[in-house]
This record gives sequence, C-alpha cells and structure tokens, in this order.
Amino acid sequence: MPLVHITRRERFSASHRLARPDWSLEKNLQVFGKCANPNGHGHNYDLWVTVKGEPDPETSFVIDLSLLGRIIKDRVIQFVDHRNLDVDVPFMQGRYSSTENLAIAIWEQLEAPIREAGAALHCVKLQETENNHVEYHGA
Amino acid sequence: MPLVHITRRERFSASHRLARPDWSLEKNLQVFGKCANPNGHGHNYDLWVTVKGEPDPETSFVIDLSLLGRIIKDRVIQFVDHRNLDVDVPFMQGRYSSTENLAIAIWEQLEAPIREAGAALHCVKLQETENNHVEYHGA
Amino acid sequence: MPLVHITRRERFSASHRLARPDWSLEKNLQVFGKCANPNGHGHNYDLWVTVKGEPDPETSFVIDLSLLGRIIKDRVIQFVDHRNLDVDVPFMQGRYSSTENLAIAIWEQLEAPIREAGAALHCVKLQETENNHVEYHGA
Amino acid sequence: MPLVHITRRERFSASHRLARPDWSLEKNLQVFGKCANPNGHGHNYDLWVTVKGEPDPETSFVIDLSLLGRIIKDRVIQFVDHRNLDVDVPFMQGRYSSTENLAIAIWEQLEAPIREAGAALHCVKLQETENNHVEYHGA
Amino acid sequence: MPLVHITRRERFSASHRLARPDWSLEKNLQVFGKCANPNGHGHNYDLWVTVKGEPDPETSFVIDLSLLGRIIKDRVIQFVDHRNLDVDVPFMQGRYSSTENLAIAIWEQLEAPIREAGAALHCVKLQETENNHVEYHGA
Amino acid sequence: MPLVHITRRERFSASHRLARPDWSLEKNLQVFGKCANPNGHGHNYDLWVTVKGEPDPETSFVIDLSLLGRIIKDRVIQFVDHRNLDVDVPFMQGRYSSTENLAIAIWEQLEAPIREAGAALHCVKLQETENNHVEYHGA
Repeated sequence: MPLVHITRRERFSASHRLARPDWSLEKNLQVFGKCANPNGHGHNYDLWVTVKGEPDPETSFVIDLSLLGRIIKDRVIQFVDHRNLDVDVPFMQGRYSSTENLAIAIWEQLEAPIREAGAALHCVKLQETENNHVEYHGA
Repeated sequence: MPLVHITRRERFSASHRLARPDWSLEKNLQVFGKCANPNGHGHNYDLWVTVKGEPDPETSFVIDLSLLGRIIKDRVIQFVDHRNLDVDVPFMQGRYSSTENLAIAIWEQLEAPIREAGAALHCVKLQETENNHVEYHGA
Repeated sequence: MPLVHITRRERFSASHRLARPDWSLEKNLQVFGKCANPNGHGHNYDLWVTVKGEPDPETSFVIDLSLLGRIIKDRVIQFVDHRNLDVDVPFMQGRYSSTENLAIAIWEQLEAPIREAGAALHCVKLQETENNHVEYHGA
Repeated sequence: MPLVHITRRERFSASHRLARPDWSLEKNLQVFGKCANPNGHGHNYDLWVTVKGEPDPETSFVIDLSLLGRIIKDRVIQFVDHRNLDVDVPFMQGRYSSTENLAIAIWEQLEAPIREAGAALHCVKLQETENNHVEYHGA
Repeated sequence: MPLVHITRRERFSASHRLARPDWSLEKNLQVFGKCANPNGHGHNYDLWVTVKGEPDPETSFVIDLSLLGRIIKDRVIQFVDHRNLDVDVPFMQGRYSSTENLAIAIWEQLEAPIREAGAALHCVKLQETENNHVEYHGA
Repeated sequence: MPLVHITRRERFSASHRLARPDWSLEKNLQVFGKCANPNGHGHNYDLWVTVKGEPDPETSFVIDLSLLGRIIKDRVIQFVDHRNLDVDVPFMQGRYSSTENLAIAIWEQLEAPIREAGAALHCVKLQETENNHVEYHGA
C-alpha cells in the first residue's frame, strides 16, 4: 500500500528570551548573545506538521486536513500565538525556549491526538526566521 | 560514489472538486467541506520532482535538467495545466482528485521515463496552497 | 497630519474560465488560449487590500486590522473561496472573470464598508499566479 | 534627467505589546485583542526603505547601497533588533508600538541622514507578518 | 473609464561586473567594493513590467498577457538570460551594468512595442537580490 | 536522547559557465545549452546547511547558530560570494561548476569544522534558481 506524507503549515507570533535563570546576565549575554536581551524579543514562527499514512480507501485522505488543522490549533497555536513563550505557555514550563526545545515540546503535544486520529506524526519543522529552522522526528 | 538528489519545480493551474459520485451532495459536503462545492474550485499547484543518482563523470549531472523538465512537461504538465482534474486528465480517470491521489498518479507518470533517462525518481512533492502539500516516495 | 497606507492580505482558491458566451469555442480558444478550456481551470488568488488614512489619536490605527479582515471576508472571501467565479459569485454576474474585472468588482464590494469604517480604500491588488497581478485604484 | 527609486530591505526581530497605560487591562484587551497580552508577543519585521534620485553620472548609483544599508543599521536596526519595542528603543519612547507608529518613527530616523547622503527618502514599508504591512511617505 | 495596472514577471540569470574602464582596479574596488571583482559575479534577476490602461470592452484585458510576455522575451530576456551583461547585451553597450542603468535600458526596450500593442508602460521593477531592487517610471 | 536537525541558510551571488575545456564550443553548447555561453552567466545561490545532533543539556542547542554561520562564512561564503566559480574559488579548481559538484565541494569544506564543533553535518542543499536545487548527504 502507498505511504504518503502530508504537511500542514500553521503560523504564530510570540516573544521569548534565551537565558538560564541560574546564570548571571553577563554569562547569559556571552552564551546567548543578543537573544539574551533582558526585555526579550520575538518572532513570526512558521510551523510545518508532517503526518504519514496510507490514503483512506473511502476519502483518499491520509488525514482530514481540517481535522489536522484543528488539532494543531487546539494543542499548540492557542497556547503560543501572541504569547510570551517563557511565561505564558504551559507545555514550555521548565524549558528554555530554544527552537530545538520548542519543536520537541510541540511534537509531544501533537503525537497522541494525531495517533488517535488514525495517522502517525512524522516531523515537526519549526522556522524562527527565514534563515534558520529545526526539524524533529521523535525520540 | 556520491549520491546526489536534484529537484526541479514546475507549476500548473487546475480546477477540481472533491466528491464521490456514489454519495449524496449532503454527504459529500459533510465529508469534504467546501472542497465539495458543486461547481468546483481551483489551485495553482507547485510540483517538485526529485531525482537521485550519481553525477555523470562526463557532465557531472545526475540528470540533464532540461531533459527532466521536458519529461515533466510531456508526461504531466500538458495534461493538467489549465485543465479540470476531474474531467480532462487521462491519468486521473477513476480517481478522486485529492492531493494524495494526484501525487501518486504523477509518480506513475514519471517513474518509467526518468528510469529510461538513466536516473531514479526519488520524490514527488505537490503543493496545493502555501499551507499544505504532500510527498510521495513510491510504493 | 501623517497619511499612512496599511495593507491586509487575504487568500482564496477559485475556478473559472475565460470565454464569451456570444463567441464560438474556436474564437474563444483563439483569443483566450488555454484559459478558454471548456471545463475550466483554477488558481490560488492572493488579494492585498490597501487602506489609507491618518492614525487614530487613541489607538494609532488607520483602521483596526481585524475589522478590515472581517469586511474583506464578509464582502469578498465568503463568496469566492472554493467557488467557481463564473457560476457561484453574485457580484461577478454578467462579467467575464478576467483578473482585471475581478479586481474592479472587489473594489466595488469593499469601498462603501471601508468608508463606513472611517477609512478610505486606496488599492486592490489581485495576484493570479506568482507571475501576474493587477492593481486597481478606483474610477 | 531620469528619476529612479531604489529599495533596500533589512530585517529585525522584536517583541512588543499593544496597550495604553491609561486604560484598564479589560479595555486594552477589548480594543487591541490578543495584541494586548500582558506578557507581550513578537514578530520578524521586514523593512523596505525606498530612496529616489537621479543616478550619479560617475557611478550610475542613486545611492551607494552599502552606505544606505549602513545608515539603516546605524539609525534603526541596532536599536530594534532582538529588542522590546516598548522598553528598549529610544525613538519609540512615548509612542504605542503599532506598525503605523513604528513606520513613522523609522522615517524620522532615516530622513536626515539619507538627505545628507545626497538622496531623498521616498517610502518606509514595514511588514509585521506576511498578511499585513504599512507604508509611510512622510508628512 | 477605469484605469487598471497589470504586471507580468519574467526572470533571467546573468553575470556582470561593476567597474569603470577609465579607473584603476584599486579605485574600482574602493568605489564598487566586491561588485568590482575582476572575474565578475552574477544574479538571478526578477523583472516586473507594469502596464496601465483601460480594459478592452471585448476581452476585458488591459493587454493580452501572453503578448506582453512575448514582447518582454523578444526585447529583453533573449538578450540577457544566461549572458554577461557587460559583454553580450547590445542595449547595454556603453553603460555600466548597475541595476539603475539596466532598469532604464529595459524601459527603453519595452516602451515602444507596448505602445504599439495599445497600452502604456508604467513601471519597470528590477530585483537583483531579495534585499534590493529598483523601479523606473520613465523620464 | 532526542536527535534534532537544525538548518541555517546563507546566500551568495556568483558567476560561472558550464563547459569542458577539452570539448569544442559547439559540443559544449550542444550538451550544456545556454549554460555554456562563452562569457558566462550568474545566479543568486541559496545554501541551506543542516546539522544533526542532540541538544546540549546546558544550552539546549544542537550547535550555536552564530558559530555555524561563522563556519559557513569562513569556509564557503568568503570564497564564492561575488566571485567567478570557475576562476576564483580554490576548492572548485579542477571541477566543472555544476550545482551537483558545487554542493559536494561545499560539503567537503564544512564537514570537518562542523565535526570539530561537536555536531554532524547532515545535508547541504544548494538552490540555483527557484526552479532547481540539489541536496547532498555525504559519500
């Protein structure tokens, strides 16, 4: 049977700051550079969620894209859009808001509900600026 | 020997409608949403065709890109560009025009002629809107 | 007082066909080329609506962007998205669906409600593909 | 003599919040919506600076683009990139950080040094997300 | 009658070098920086040609876009695509290949044939990289 | 432990020509088409470098992106930007400047310094125009 990957993009705008609370400002600025600016900065994030599976014989869909969009909005976007990643987001508590950590946390938010919808999460791709992005395929 | 992937993008504009002929309009609208609108809708599709192989020692090409472009135009674009995917396209007869099915059908159109050109088709990526695309790597 | 232009983009996917009902198929194909394909084709349209005005002293907004988005959705997008421009759209009745005509019709839909919202419509920019777009600034 | 417009794009990432200090949180949320989230949010801003003038007979440049880039970095980018627009930016003191106000403030930063470089500032275009931007042409 | 602007994009890839033959290499490098590298460099240029006019009552076109595309290819693209702007292009003889000069030369190539096609050239926009472009509206 | 891929984009503008010195101009034009134009042509290249690894427990970075950027600039960009790939670039000596060969050469420039920085090079993706790119994952 054919295996197909399908990807949906969602976007959000958030602020954050890269800094360890157990480090001095001096050390944070040395390690994280301008990302450690005490008053924070922000980005327009682009999020691509890729799901894999066999097309359903009835609908020829791997997953209903509007269902996938709803899962992403319910489990991720409503918590991060127009928010501060370091203060406002329950699933980022206790993690530094590096793009790597944010992608891993988004994977954890999405894996179970996508499995319950009969498909398999394949990749979370998160773009912070047009010059850098990360991809996570699960542990 | 080094294995390299090379990708060419082509584009086409087509109309289609998502609906099963054996279902009522009511059921089609329920399952396919606005994609089941009886008079159809349309998209600008972006198609990326990825071929893999070892660079030719003489030309250092995996495949001549103008030959690859010609194959894609001859086998796919001329049949779908400025067409109705549900009515006009021979290789979509008997298939619903979901992005998944269209990517699989395009793979079937391209695999043999690319093999005859001395390379191997690796991936068909088909983007329907900037928010969703599918990828197919063969059965 | 400073005059500022503010632009909001919305998108829609629609099918259409370029053909005059009073011309033969032969003549339509000769004048409109592949755009006259009898079963239609389609596009992802990008619509940029530019409004001009002085920023409000209280909010420093020329126009509330969420209100502008709502006007565009209520007056344009809900009628054209996932529709057939030649059959389904009330405000295109009796007009060929050239990009020029569609941009003019969208202007007519938007001018009054934007004026009622206290701002002035400046430009409707409508992109059919990444290679062509039209702009209309009113009569 | 021919008049030519030349545009340079620079980018920056910043956080901000839309809220009036003399309004309650309730009223701020009602007027500014999710942009009034108390802990802020952020964006990747794209800034296009357009300068007009006659090409120099010696160099055929309206303005040396590397000089223009340096002016934009010295007068704007170093103050806003990876910063909080409401706290960190001297030239935004006392102004709400709406895109309109930010574009006007950037104009004020750039007009004199571009005039001193022998050219004339024509337009500041500031994009907050791919769906909205403002343009300012001066008072 | 409504005035509409319509734009077509074409692309070309070319090499060039910024340097005055009457200056020393040292002076050229000082004024033109890395653009004066003796062996040249190159770009993918994006060219947007904007034409204005009233839609034709019969076709509702300002200009037939395939005719406009043909004019641009015949008068510009065939001379510059995959060429060296300083050596191969008849209409650039005697001019430095700054983006400003190239846009002016393209205007001169296009103005008459577009007028003969019953429309009026409005703007030539030429993008050298995603960070800089020029616009020319005629003398 | 989670494996994450992180990608950084850099850009450069270069000229080149596709031609074998041991072939006649006639044969070069026949095989390489307009890419064999004797005076060369050029492109804006987009380069995406993907690195894989486990996020560092202290910083949660796979690799410090500013370090990665510095490696790419020191080992690749300074040699190719605003240069002629066939004449000016030490690591392209003796190779035809096909996109395939250039991607392989860039891999060879980057693999060791990225390994020394504690991460592993995963993919070099090199885009010549918006219509074609190659990817190389190592031998």
